[in-house]
Amino acid sequence: MKTLIIISHPTIDTSLNQQFFKEASATLPITWHHLEACYPDGKVGLPTELNLLKEHERIIFQFPFYWYSAPAHLKMWQDQVLESAEQYLKGKELGIVLTTGVATKEYQAGGKEEYTISEFLRPYQRIAHKFQMSFLPPFVLSQFMYQTESQRFEKLIAYQQYLSLANKPSLVHRIAWFMERLEQHPAIEQSAGNKQEMIVEMLEEAKETIEDLTFTLQELKGTSS
Amino acid sequence: MKTLIIISHPTIDTSLNQQFFKEASATLPITWHHLEACYPDGKVGLPTELNLLKEHERIIFQFPFYWYSAPAHLKMWQDQVLESAEQYLKGKELGIVLTTGVATKEYQAGGKEEYTISEFLRPYQRIAHKFQMSFLPPFVLSQFMYQTESQRFEKLIAYQQYLSLANKPSLVHRIAWFMERLEQHPAIEQSAGNKQEMIVEMLEEAKETIEDLTFTLQELKGTSS
Repeated sequence: MKTLIIISHPTIDTSLNQQFFKEASATLPITWHHLEACYPDGKVGLPTELNLLKEHERIIFQFPFYWYSAPAHLKMWQDQVLESAEQYLKGKELGIVLTTGVATKEYQAGGKEEYTISEFLRPYQRIAHKFQMSFLPPFVLSQFMYQTESQRFEKLIAYQQYLSLANKPSLVHRIAWFMERLEQHPAIEQSAGNKQEMIVEMLEEAKETIEDLTFTLQELKGTSS
Repeated sequence: MKTLIIISHPTIDTSLNQQFFKEASATLPITWHHLEACYPDGKVGLPTELNLLKEHERIIFQFPFYWYSAPAHLKMWQDQVLESAEQYLKGKELGIVLTTGVATKEYQAGGKEEYTISEFLRPYQRIAHKFQMSFLPPFVLSQFMYQTESQRFEKLIAYQQYLSLANKPSLVHRIAWFMERLEQHPAIEQSAGNKQEMIVEMLEEAKETIEDLTFTLQELKGTSS
């Protein structure tokens, strides 16, 4: 599977987030496509864009939140390309890689940003459905500069999986992927420190999911009794 | 109160909707500000824009849905202006005048467009709240070309009221406004045909509201009994 990352960021050279993403994706079978660099005046080359869409199976829009949606360059791209893109998008996947300066927990009722990220992303979700694409759960990186080394490493693995693993991978699948990557790129092991730690992390996440489900079940039982 | 209508529409000259809006607003104290005409290359004059915001109390974004949000030109305006606009927006009103080619009823769960217009407009609603503006319920004009003369006349009055009446006007206020306009511009009476009809229309609407409220009340009573 080949992944096309369509990036919109007007000041990418000074963006730690985008630098991090670029390095993380360097060894993967992806195409890095930065709109502001390719089309400084916003006039998009339609045949080039359609060809890119044609050659990839997973399409990612990657951007920082600018007023609760993508920067203007991605909107220019949408307005010029999507109308002609149906045959190159149908049946494929659309993902969103979003960076925010505000903590993720503020995106909820009562939080500083009031609405959820899912609510703000409705237009993209609808575009996916309109083209019969499957919409991947968004990958969100918030307040990167405040994260510890170990949090960043976790995010790096998660981002690589977002770009290259099958949609909604199982836990077993994710761990297998990680082990395989370690074998192929021994350098990762070094920066991973203890690889057990990473796997424990994934298991922890699974534990939370199970606890959530158990809790919901108990609640449902409570309601019906 | 002065109203600033910020319009984004790349092909405004052939738009029946925008022609209709322009004529409807001609006799009102508004400023008609078409972004694509003022800034063909998308580079916005910041001092001009801030001055416009300063001089108006109600700000309207008026546009057709392009991929479930405004055309790129409005996004360019947002990305260049909003960061410096806080002091000129605080405490004012933000309204959205939206045109759609798809019937309004399709914007709901199970409808062709899947989500509500309110959901798609979350980014604008959040911008309003961020600047401590009050967000007006959006004014939506769908499938204008299929409307009858009488439906169009109703929409014309409703649009004029959206631009110039106080936020969430009472029924009495709306009828008084209509009678006053009739006196000032006798030409309207002619195109209104029977002015009683227009008022009956407004009363009908009030009746529906009352019925809705009564129904909700009964439901609430039903639940608590």
